[in-house]
Amino acid sequence: MGGDVFGRELRLISFGESHGKVVGAIIEGVPAGLRLSEEDVQRVLDLRRPGQSHLSSQRAEEDRVEVLSGLFNGYTTGAPLCMIVRNLDVDSSYYGEFRRFPRPGHADYIASVKYGGYNDHRGGGRFSGRVTVSMCMGGAVAMRLLERLNVEVIAYSLEIGGERAKDFTLEEARAYRYLNPVRAPNEESYLRMAGAIEEARREGDSVGGIVEAIALNVPQGLGEPIFDTIEGDLAKAMFSIPGVRGVEFGSGFRAASMRGSEHNDPMRIINGKIRYVKNDHGGAIGGITTGEPLVIRVAFKPTPSIAKPQDSVDLEMLRDVEIKVKGRHDPCIVPRAVVVVESMLAFTLADHAMRCGLIPSVMR
Amino acid sequence: MGGDVFGRELRLISFGESHGKVVGAIIEGVPAGLRLSEEDVQRVLDLRRPGQSHLSSQRAEEDRVEVLSGLFNGYTTGAPLCMIVRNLDVDSSYYGEFRRFPRPGHADYIASVKYGGYNDHRGGGRFSGRVTVSMCMGGAVAMRLLERLNVEVIAYSLEIGGERAKDFTLEEARAYRYLNPVRAPNEESYLRMAGAIEEARREGDSVGGIVEAIALNVPQGLGEPIFDTIEGDLAKAMFSIPGVRGVEFGSGFRAASMRGSEHNDPMRIINGKIRYVKNDHGGAIGGITTGEPLVIRVAFKPTPSIAKPQDSVDLEMLRDVEIKVKGRHDPCIVPRAVVVVESMLAFTLADHAMRCGLIPSVMR
Amino acid sequence: MGGDVFGRELRLISFGESHGKVVGAIIEGVPAGLRLSEEDVQRVLDLRRPGQSHLSSQRAEEDRVEVLSGLFNGYTTGAPLCMIVRNLDVDSSYYGEFRRFPRPGHADYIASVKYGGYNDHRGGGRFSGRVTVSMCMGGAVAMRLLERLNVEVIAYSLEIGGERAKDFTLEEARAYRYLNPVRAPNEESYLRMAGAIEEARREGDSVGGIVEAIALNVPQGLGEPIFDTIEGDLAKAMFSIPGVRGVEFGSGFRAASMRGSEHNDPMRIINGKIRYVKNDHGGAIGGITTGEPLVIRVAFKPTPSIAKPQDSVDLEMLRDVEIKVKGRHDPCIVPRAVVVVESMLAFTLADHAMRCGLIPSVMR
Amino acid sequence: MGGDVFGRELRLISFGESHGKVVGAIIEGVPAGLRLSEEDVQRVLDLRRPGQSHLSSQRAEEDRVEVLSGLFNGYTTGAPLCMIVRNLDVDSSYYGEFRRFPRPGHADYIASVKYGGYNDHRGGGRFSGRVTVSMCMGGAVAMRLLERLNVEVIAYSLEIGGERAKDFTLEEARAYRYLNPVRAPNEESYLRMAGAIEEARREGDSVGGIVEAIALNVPQGLGEPIFDTIEGDLAKAMFSIPGVRGVEFGSGFRAASMRGSEHNDPMRIINGKIRYVKNDHGGAIGGITTGEPLVIRVAFKPTPSIAKPQDSVDLEMLRDVEIKVKGRHDPCIVPRAVVVVESMLAFTLADHAMRCGLIPSVMR
Repeated sequence: MGGDVFGRELRLISFGESHGKVVGAIIEGVPAGLRLSEEDVQRVLDLRRPGQSHLSSQRAEEDRVEVLSGLFNGYTTGAPLCMIVRNLDVDSSYYGEFRRFPRPGHADYIASVKYGGYNDHRGGGRFSGRVTVSMCMGGAVAMRLLERLNVEVIAYSLEIGGERAKDFTLEEARAYRYLNPVRAPNEESYLRMAGAIEEARREGDSVGGIVEAIALNVPQGLGEPIFDTIEGDLAKAMFSIPGVRGVEFGSGFRAASMRGSEHNDPMRIINGKIRYVKNDHGGAIGGITTGEPLVIRVAFKPTPSIAKPQDSVDLEMLRDVEIKVKGRHDPCIVPRAVVVVESMLAFTLADHAMRCGLIPSVMR
Repeated sequence: MGGDVFGRELRLISFGESHGKVVGAIIEGVPAGLRLSEEDVQRVLDLRRPGQSHLSSQRAEEDRVEVLSGLFNGYTTGAPLCMIVRNLDVDSSYYGEFRRFPRPGHADYIASVKYGGYNDHRGGGRFSGRVTVSMCMGGAVAMRLLERLNVEVIAYSLEIGGERAKDFTLEEARAYRYLNPVRAPNEESYLRMAGAIEEARREGDSVGGIVEAIALNVPQGLGEPIFDTIEGDLAKAMFSIPGVRGVEFGSGFRAASMRGSEHNDPMRIINGKIRYVKNDHGGAIGGITTGEPLVIRVAFKPTPSIAKPQDSVDLEMLRDVEIKVKGRHDPCIVPRAVVVVESMLAFTLADHAMRCGLIPSVMR
Repeated sequence: MGGDVFGRELRLISFGESHGKVVGAIIEGVPAGLRLSEEDVQRVLDLRRPGQSHLSSQRAEEDRVEVLSGLFNGYTTGAPLCMIVRNLDVDSSYYGEFRRFPRPGHADYIASVKYGGYNDHRGGGRFSGRVTVSMCMGGAVAMRLLERLNVEVIAYSLEIGGERAKDFTLEEARAYRYLNPVRAPNEESYLRMAGAIEEARREGDSVGGIVEAIALNVPQGLGEPIFDTIEGDLAKAMFSIPGVRGVEFGSGFRAASMRGSEHNDPMRIINGKIRYVKNDHGGAIGGITTGEPLVIRVAFKPTPSIAKPQDSVDLEMLRDVEIKVKGRHDPCIVPRAVVVVESMLAFTLADHAMRCGLIPSVMR
Repeated sequence: MGGDVFGRELRLISFGESHGKVVGAIIEGVPAGLRLSEEDVQRVLDLRRPGQSHLSSQRAEEDRVEVLSGLFNGYTTGAPLCMIVRNLDVDSSYYGEFRRFPRPGHADYIASVKYGGYNDHRGGGRFSGRVTVSMCMGGAVAMRLLERLNVEVIAYSLEIGGERAKDFTLEEARAYRYLNPVRAPNEESYLRMAGAIEEARREGDSVGGIVEAIALNVPQGLGEPIFDTIEGDLAKAMFSIPGVRGVEFGSGFRAASMRGSEHNDPMRIINGKIRYVKNDHGGAIGGITTGEPLVIRVAFKPTPSIAKPQDSVDLEMLRDVEIKVKGRHDPCIVPRAVVVVESMLAFTLADHAMRCGLIPSVMR
């Protein structure tokens, strides 16, 4: 049991439920002297907030962060940062029945088995995407830490509903992703992705997609050869995000059908520096960052909550039923997941940077 | 630094280098009273041993396990199990030069950066596939623990060099995979995969592939909703295996282009039990096992060591060079990785089963 | 850095500062289905609350606990419990100067060195005894868990200001300790201890003391032979309480001058059970609980805050100064520490009981 | 279960049993580039080796260390160091009967309960003092790391059999402690302590004692205010050593009867530095090192193995018996524990120094 703590030197502890009083996080191990404001965190939270377009859930949470500890005179103190966001617009009226008629694709049934029925099932409780608020809190702090190392993290929707982004540059993605509600890297792909979401929504259905994230200026040498590989810790971070079904680095699954002569990235001296001529390795070899851009792709399943009728069971009477899921849901979770992927990528890199002694215990 | 410890209640500690004295493992947290022999471990090690066919490295290690502690009168004692395998057929003659001329696709260069040149580079040292011996040791113990829960773990080569297995049943895979050197699930795919490896070998090249692993009879409720999800811990375990570039569960990356109505697995009462009608979720929802077969796929890159000339750099003179990698290498690591995937799958499940209190601290 | 997480299966995370917004705790790994109310926690918090007699600090905190997560319909859910207490009666007027003129016996100076001056120094910040609120929160939950195992934890002031309790029975201590403000085990010792405190207070001075704690009905076999010994984990727990300078078990330091023939506890069959005839071992041998009462003694230094003038330094001008410490302080912290010792004893035992599988992951 | 791992950034993993094949240790997280030889470790092991005088056990182990991994060309590689010592002079003839007739003061009985009788009981197995070999291995590596920080660790027998050392200086202790078999700090106390041990031995009895350890030049700021206090982690380390019953820092238990005005260490500017005029705090305030000498005292019980007849039970027939313990035992374990205390003190300080970023991940 347990399992709500992530990281080793920098630790993220998640708490709270979808329809409880709060969702929140403790970020532990943060060096003293980091300039940080509630606004730094709010900015990240706002990027995952629901109700911002007709493409996402109409739950209208303000998601105003309140820092309860660890901050003093605008700087971190070295003590644990505790932050909360209150759950205000809670409407649990639809959820009571999911105890009895579990929603396919959701954890309703298995959570009830695991926790003997004692779990807070309202709004999915601890299994809700709302819990990613904790991750954004950790990410906001991590991003501030990474600024010191000049590391930048950029995620965007690479594919939604089968529509794959193309013909974009990283510069475009950096500039455009948060200017459009689906977090596409350029306008052309935004239009196609938005179309796919809208079509699914109209049909009472949902779509999945792929988030791609790039970290730039990553220091060489983060990660360990066995077990605590950078890929392994990042993958663990990503699978914590609800709905993730696959994670890959660099050429990823495509590498499986490549030849060695094709996949190996040749090395050359470029401007006096040792560089890889291409980046099929995705910024990590042998579990360790090479200094090339770290490239990760995260596959999300389609939102399980759909308006269409579905086959389920009546847990009380042990008989088959057909259910329709009401409530306010995103026809695609990928757009709101983009900043969560960015957050967990930043957090994991910051943790490993601290493990390697690259971030001092007091920042000045 | 560090990072050589995996697991929480059941812990696997890896040590040793490719061309050092030994490779070994400590398995800590093992309940007392588990019947275990060196043969139980040897059987697993033998499945990853090199030199067994012309399709794999000709390094002729006997890989004879020696248990140094934790075993008494044929049973575990509750104390740490320490096991070693000695490195006998060590030929480091080819490796000295990799310090200066790093092999593309290998960690030679980045390891030298990370460890300031102090790492044992011989045979790849700590980055060698040989270190997966530790994982097989842990897997052997975990498999014995899982027998108590009736859990069975079956892995096989799903795809090698672009040749994908097809038309096989799980029963065929279970029976056939260790009867053929590429660990294919049936004869037809074996022939195609072996052909692909042989062709690459002849051309001085290498191929990658995908391992699929299934766990049967997995208890419901393993894993946690946040951070310590079963998928996250399994993914971390898999990315520890050298050469892994992607991990997915159930429909995996394919889920990204599915509709919710298509991906959600309907629930039905079947023989009085609550079951999922299909298994696109791959045995885990919300980070927790559902009791359906756990399905994981692991993508391996092609072996980086190839005979073809490659572009590299001279780290001493800081100039471009062309190198040819000598030494004894597998043209495809996938066949030998199959039992390693099985091992890490078993280990992670056993750890989570212990966390959930399903394995008693004394077995009787 | 960090270090705010205690325990392995049951984890206590502390956050908050003396004069910040809140002090609080997360208790993680709690099984689902434990009946728990805010009153259960309040009862424990009330026993450490200041301002309850003229013998303790006049800070008048109501210390009303608010559970933010993990509780649903009166039962734990298996998700992290987050609890806070707001700091209301905060008077930081005295503390600004401690930045410049550190108080002897306090962490003012060394904290400023460690955190580069960024620590929240107000009221001692993270070093204040007020942070033991977190420990009482963890203790309250642990005590509820231990009820299932019939374990009872009883602490009391064994010695204060040189006045040692005598001629009391455990039954007296259990009944009387929370009926008197110094937490003495019987009335006679209460009067002597209260006299010692009062005398020190009148003289602008302070006194230390010893808390003794007994755990009854402790299951056999808690603890491990190496490193995670029950004594080691308990000692670590106790040294987290501000002001602790020594910890001993059973005959403790006195054992150092005993003969083996005197210290060894003879074993006998008593009522068909294997028992120890006496308990100089204090309930643990070889790091493992024997089932006899666990006996621990914890030495507290005298409160460092005293009214008498003291030699200190001016950190700004680097010169010697004499200071007088104002503020509201306990002339003896031992009485209020009693329930904190009880809490950390309970928490550590509950964690080890969970490690040994004695508390199920769902309680029914 | 488990519990054989100590430390956070620098981790010590212990394995092996008294009469098994080996005792050994893994030291994980060691920076690359530390100059280290087997002789460095042997020197420490030799200081705890039995059979060196008639005052200690006559078991004649050579205790020759063999480093199995992590060392290359005389330097650490950053990979786990695995070391073993083989058990050669094993005589288990006396031990079979302890399964049935447990020795008072030993873990024979409770270990059998905890491990369901599967533990390796020979020679005390995992509960034997022989397991402290692992600790000396960790200590040897830690001492080499601490040399970089100029930290020195000095332990000695402060009291044995009621004979307390007096009139010695730290310089005398440093020079003399390993020149005499009881590890006394000066000759006068050596003679008295040796007399006490000899007298107990003649009477078939045993004595306990107190080890005092001092660490010099400890960097300021090691340790954390809550939970991971330097005192707490050191206490946990010490209670791992078999036979320890109490741990105290600075004035320790004596502080309980002091006044605040007496215990508080005044601060003064001395030679331009902020210093404490005396050291009743023992080098740590608020869980954090102050830079003053760290002073710890560790109380050991008398050796439980004595020649005198003792009351025990027959576990098979469940009846009272009288037993006499044969075998080769130290009439006092304190002399051989001195270097173990030194080792665990060094290890814990090195771990905390790494946590604070004071030891780089590559040493040059």
